[in-house]
Order: sequence, then structure tokens, then C-alpha cells
Amino acid sequence: MKVFLALATILLFAFTQVTKKKVIFFGDSITQAGVNAGGYITKVGELAVKDRQQDNFEFIGAGIGGNKVYDLYLRLEDDVLSKKPDIVVIYIGVNDVWHKQSSGTGTDYDKFERFYNALLKKLKDANIKVILATPAVIGERTDNTNQLDGDLNRYSTLIRKLAQTNNLPLVDLRKAFMDYGKANNPENKESGILTTDRVHLNEKGNQLVADEMWKAVKAL
Amino acid sequence: MKVFLALATILLFAFTQVTKKKVIFFGDSITQAGVNAGGYITKVGELAVKDRQQDNFEFIGAGIGGNKVYDLYLRLEDDVLSKKPDIVVIYIGVNDVWHKQSSGTGTDYDKFERFYNALLKKLKDANIKVILATPAVIGERTDNTNQLDGDLNRYSTLIRKLAQTNNLPLVDLRKAFMDYGKANNPENKESGILTTDRVHLNEKGNQLVADEMWKAVKAL
Amino acid sequence: MKVFLALATILLFAFTQVTKKKVIFFGDSITQAGVNAGGYITKVGELAVKDRQQDNFEFIGAGIGGNKVYDLYLRLEDDVLSKKPDIVVIYIGVNDVWHKQSSGTGTDYDKFERFYNALLKKLKDANIKVILATPAVIGERTDNTNQLDGDLNRYSTLIRKLAQTNNLPLVDLRKAFMDYGKANNPENKESGILTTDRVHLNEKGNQLVADEMWKAVKAL
Amino acid sequence: MKVFLALATILLFAFTQVTKKKVIFFGDSITQAGVNAGGYITKVGELAVKDRQQDNFEFIGAGIGGNKVYDLYLRLEDDVLSKKPDIVVIYIGVNDVWHKQSSGTGTDYDKFERFYNALLKKLKDANIKVILATPAVIGERTDNTNQLDGDLNRYSTLIRKLAQTNNLPLVDLRKAFMDYGKANNPENKESGILTTDRVHLNEKGNQLVADEMWKAVKAL
Repeated sequence: MKVFLALATILLFAFTQVTKKKVIFFGDSITQAGVNAGGYITKVGELAVKDRQQDNFEFIGAGIGGNKVYDLYLRLEDDVLSKKPDIVVIYIGVNDVWHKQSSGTGTDYDKFERFYNALLKKLKDANIKVILATPAVIGERTDNTNQLDGDLNRYSTLIRKLAQTNNLPLVDLRKAFMDYGKANNPENKESGILTTDRVHLNEKGNQLVADEMWKAVKAL
Repeated sequence: MKVFLALATILLFAFTQVTKKKVIFFGDSITQAGVNAGGYITKVGELAVKDRQQDNFEFIGAGIGGNKVYDLYLRLEDDVLSKKPDIVVIYIGVNDVWHKQSSGTGTDYDKFERFYNALLKKLKDANIKVILATPAVIGERTDNTNQLDGDLNRYSTLIRKLAQTNNLPLVDLRKAFMDYGKANNPENKESGILTTDRVHLNEKGNQLVADEMWKAVKAL
Repeated sequence: MKVFLALATILLFAFTQVTKKKVIFFGDSITQAGVNAGGYITKVGELAVKDRQQDNFEFIGAGIGGNKVYDLYLRLEDDVLSKKPDIVVIYIGVNDVWHKQSSGTGTDYDKFERFYNALLKKLKDANIKVILATPAVIGERTDNTNQLDGDLNRYSTLIRKLAQTNNLPLVDLRKAFMDYGKANNPENKESGILTTDRVHLNEKGNQLVADEMWKAVKAL
Repeated sequence: MKVFLALATILLFAFTQVTKKKVIFFGDSITQAGVNAGGYITKVGELAVKDRQQDNFEFIGAGIGGNKVYDLYLRLEDDVLSKKPDIVVIYIGVNDVWHKQSSGTGTDYDKFERFYNALLKKLKDANIKVILATPAVIGERTDNTNQLDGDLNRYSTLIRKLAQTNNLPLVDLRKAFMDYGKANNPENKESGILTTDRVHLNEKGNQLVADEMWKAVKAL
């Protein structure tokens, strides 16, 4: 009997190993910080533990500060495809908009779409499941007066359309942050609600992103 | 009796002459085009005729293409004060926002406020009544996805605040255009509703601006 | 005898066919216009005729208006590799610099280098010979007062370095245009010397580019 | 005799008091830092002592970080005219160029000229002597590859022209820095030669600016 149980455990373990899904979060500085203590990817890991699913998933951060959609495309092979993930979460767009204003090197709207589609095609060709995410905020004011709100809404709308067209799950962080702000930012502050500096996540921001991400990942 | 009537007419006429109010519209290319046939200033004149108030007002356009708030300040003496107007409508802000994106020469938010206040102070010192106007649109999409919506909202909010703080009438064109778009732009078009090219007024746009302007002017 | 001659002709023709080199000019609007009558690619063809080399080369334009280095990368497979060229001339960089100023969507210096290297690697892997070209001008003033001179010099210096590092021939259009301007633009005009509009080539500009390109191509 | 000498001393002292010239340096953050220990205005004071002219001059800094030419115009009355200076050194232009790239709020070339002329007119009307200065550097590379070199050269050329047209002395810092760099920056460094950060002055930079400024001031 003991022998049988031990064998069963080994078999179960082996089976678990085989089905452990590799999830890569592919993005910019927000994702780069996501693997830190308190970061959103770390928190996704904690949520998996809470749901007793830690043996079913491996979470990997592939974020580099300052990245735009074409940076993801350029390093897709090295940082994603070569690692043979099961699921890739594309979380990009802040710098594509922001750099227009801060350094004159943002991404044209039509080029953003083209590179995004190129990413989706390569991931599809590799039989990798993809989750899309909208860029959350550049400034947390809730009355549509953050300088880049219009453009950020536009690129988010495009990502929503790409999710729909390609029948892919969407983590709509822009919507989640807007909704949270409407309920929790009565003073119309520019930062300090879900971000430290208008863009990068504070603890609550990391938690909100983790909650939304985990919902999408475990639903796949 | 006839003599008396004639005299009364002359006196009335003289009186009318004396009290004819000079109104200067002070702005950018939108105002420069306003004096053309079909332009909003021309239409304000027509509205005055309709209300039989044409003898009480003289309407003057002082718009120059590409002007930002500091251009108004620089030419205030020559183009406004020297003409001794009774009323000045300040209609500025589109280029202060737009030029950030199109040529890197928009106006800092805090400088916009400073120059606007400097304009208000000089007009007040000259005992001239002032009407403020918000910049209408740069792009007519109604879902907050025009690239510069955030910044345009921010500068408009500032102008509303300046009107309130200084107890001055406001022609809130931004709000009027937004409301009109929500009701009349179901396809979320970028232009062609109240503008020809996302910024400059078509016939309906000129009429809407004229209606709003005339309401504010005659209420003074 | 007749039979022998006919056979020789066929053999010669076959031989010529085999060795005709396919040259693709890969670039932006300047290259797009290059295939027009009077365009630089058309003129390269004329120079080949003059040198009796028209049977040794086939010249193809692959220019698209507004293209930056990453656009070339994105369409490399479809527009270049799939056509199996022998030689590719990369003529890019104007929009990478210009769009910083005109729309906030230029290319970061480090990303420019990365995408350029990615292009070179893929072309090398396909055993295609590559010629590099520097972007000529954005403004023709000769005293270093064109707004984007500094940046254009910087990106040109990078392309020169890439040519040297990879031991590839360089068509240094920036230098050629500077030299020509010093000799032929005594009034320090902004356009009208080699361009129509500060960027796009007039007849003399097309001829100068054709001369430089042909020199490099036939030397390969 | 003693009485006579004492009287002479008093008269001399009185005379000195009367003729002490008030010099205001009017500019941006570089001038704001100029009054610090080691700053260029402090160093001008030291040079005056060295030349035993400390009793003939009073040096005042009127620099505010981030200022552009129109900021100077807006605060001319409060910060300069109200202090009744004898000499004003206008040292502006870096932010007018730089902000185009860093925040989209630089100053149009034609507006720069207009505001500069407006400054000159007001200072002339107040019988104040004016010295003009060109903006030194945004990046110290010596091969014309600093991103903003072209524009900075253009605005400097304009200031030189304004000095000539108005027959006013010029402190050509741009030229002085270029010459110094050619002789002392063999490695083509971007900063660390005369600046700490491509723009703001290190000790040698402050000394060079002080030397050039003092030459111009004492020559008036």
C-alpha cells in the first residue's frame, strides 16, 4: 500500500511537471518592476498560491524599461519564443504614447497597430496563447485632463479592437484604473492613487494589476 | 409736433452713436476667418440685426493665424487697447496645445495661466469688459480619443477657473462642441461635424460659435 | 555555321540572364519617387546604359513615404528578401530624425542602431550584398543652422560607423550634399539647391544621388 | 590742508557712490546659479576686485530656472526696470530651443525674435545699456552632432544679428564654448568640459562665462 501511494505521488508529480504552464509577462518598466518584492508578477504568484494553483503555473517577467511595441518585436525571439512559453501577456503602450511628449520618439498609431499585429502573428504561429492588456495611466486625474489621456484612450481602444478581432482575452487595465480612480480619487490627484509618479505602480496599483492579470490567466 | 419728433429722432440717433459698443474678438486663425462671409463674427453681426441691436454694437475681428496666448499679449496694445474697445472676447488656446505636438512650440501650462492673467490685468486696468472663451476642439471624436483631448480639457478647465475667479462671463465652446458632438456625431468622426479639418469651423461650427458668442455679448 | 551562331547567341543570352544582378533600393519617400521619370533610380538606370552595363543590372525601387528604419525591418521579408536580390542599398534616416520634430514619432538613437543592425544581420544571413547610405539633408543651409542638423549628423556618423564595422560600402550622401552646398549655395538658401522642399530631391539632387549610387553599385 | 583732504575724500566717496553702475544679469537657470559661490556672477565680482573696479559696479542676478525669452518679457518690469539698472545683460535661449525637444514647449523662431526685440525696445526706452549673449551649449560634442546644435546655431546667429542691427555689444558664448571645445575636448565628450550635464556650468564653464562677461561689462 505504501509503495502504491509513493508511486502515485511520483506519477502525480511527474504529471504536474508536464502540465505546468509557463506564463511570460512581456512589457516595459512596469513589468520589469513586476518581479520585485511587491511587484505585480510576484503578486500574481501569491494569488496562484492562494488558489492552490502554484504547481500549475510558472510566471516569468520579460519587461525592459522604456520599451515600446517595436522593442518587443525586436526581442520576441530571444526573450519569449526561445523560452517556449504557453501563455504570453502583452502589456505595452505607455511609452509609445509618452515618448511623443517627452522625447519626440513615440510610436505612430498605424505603426503601433502593425507591430502589434506582427507580434500576434508570430505568437500564433508558435501556438502560444496570448492575453492583451491596455496601458493603464499616464497621470491619474479622473476628469480627462491628463495631458496624454486622448492618445492613451486611442491606443487602448485599438488594443481592445485587436483583442476582439483576434478573439483573444483582454486585461483592460485602462478601464480598471479609470473605474478605480472615479471611486477612490475624489481630489482628482495626478498621482499617489495607484501610481507613485503618474505611471509606475504603488502597492495598490500592483495589487490591482495582479488581480486582473490572474483572473485572465487562470481563465485560459 | 413734427419738429419735436424729428428732434427726438436726431437725439436718439446721437445717443445711439455715443453708446454703440465696440466689441473686439481677439484670437487665432479661427477668429481671423471669423470676419469672412459665413464666419462667426459676420454671423454675430447678423444675429445682432435679427435682434435689432445692430446700432448698439460694432464687431471687430483681431485674429491672426497661429497665435498663442503670448502672441495676444505681445500685440495687445497695438491691436486692442489702441482701438479703445468696450468689450474684448479672448478666444485662444488651440495653438498653445496643438503646437506641442506639431512643432514642439506649444505653451507651458503655467505660462499659459501667467500670460492669460497678464492679459486680464491690462484689460481690467483699461476698464474694458472681458469675455473668456474655451478652445473648442482639435479633433471631433466624441469618445475622448482625439490625441490632444487631455491637454485641451486641462487648458479649458483653467480658463473656466479664470472666468470664475475674476467673475467674468465665459463662452464655453469646448463644452458646447462636446455636447453637440454627442448628439450629432454618432459615427465618431474626426472632422466634418462642426469643423472642416478637426480645428477650423465649417458653416455649422461658425453658427454655433456665433450663437454662443452673441448670447454672452448681449448679456453684458 | 548559322546553327552555331544561333546557339552561341542563346548561350550568351542565357549566361547574361544568369549574371544580371538585382539591385533593390530600400528606403522612404525619396526612394519611392526615385523610380519616377527623372528620379534617382531611373537615372542610375541611365548611367548603367551609358556604361553599357544595362544587361548586368536590374534596378528596383522599394521606397515607401514616411518610412523609418523599423518600417524597413517590418517589411524586409515581403519587399526585399522574397525578391532574392543580389544587392540592397539601405537609404534611410531622414524620417527617424524629422518625425521627432514634426509629429513626436522619430526613432531613438539606440533603437535606430539596433534595427539597422537587425537589417544588416538578416541581409547577411541571406547572402545579400549591402550598401549603406547616409540621409542627405533636412534643410540645405550650409552654416549648420538647419534645425535638425545636429541630429542628422549624429545618425549619419552612426551609419558611417556601421559601414566601417561591417566592412560594407558607404554612399555618404550627407557629405556629398554638404560639399555641394558649400560650393553652390552662396546665399545659404534653405531649399532649391538639391531639393525642392528642404528634403525631397530636385533634378540636380536626383542626379547627384544617382551618380553616387551608381559609383558604389558598379564597384561591388 | 587736512580739512581739504578730508573734504576731497568725502567728495570722492560721494562721487563714487553716484557713479556705481548697477548691472543685472537677466536669464535662466544658468544665471540663477550664477550668484552662488563659484557661479559666473560671483566670479565677475571677483574679476572686478582684481581690476580694482569693485566700487564702480554692483552685480545682480535675475535668473529663473526654465525661463525662455517670453518669461523675461513678462517679468521685465518687476525684476529689471523697477530696479533701475544701468546695464542689463540678456542671457537667454537655451530653453527656447531645448524645450522643443524635452516638453514640446520651445519658442518659435519668429516669436523669439519678436520678444527679443520687445525686450530691447523697452530697455532702450528706459535708457538702459544692454549687452546680448548667445546661448552656449546643449551638449558639448565638437563635431556638430549634439541633437540641438542646428537650432542653437540658428538662434545664436539671430542674436548676433540683433546685436549688430542695434549696435549693441555681444558676448558670444556659443562661439567661445565651441572654440574652447575644439581645443580642449579631443575625446568629443558630451559633457564634463565646461558643463556638468551638457547645459549647466562647471567651474571652468563659470570662469569662461565670467571672463567674457566682465570683458564686455568693463568695456561699456
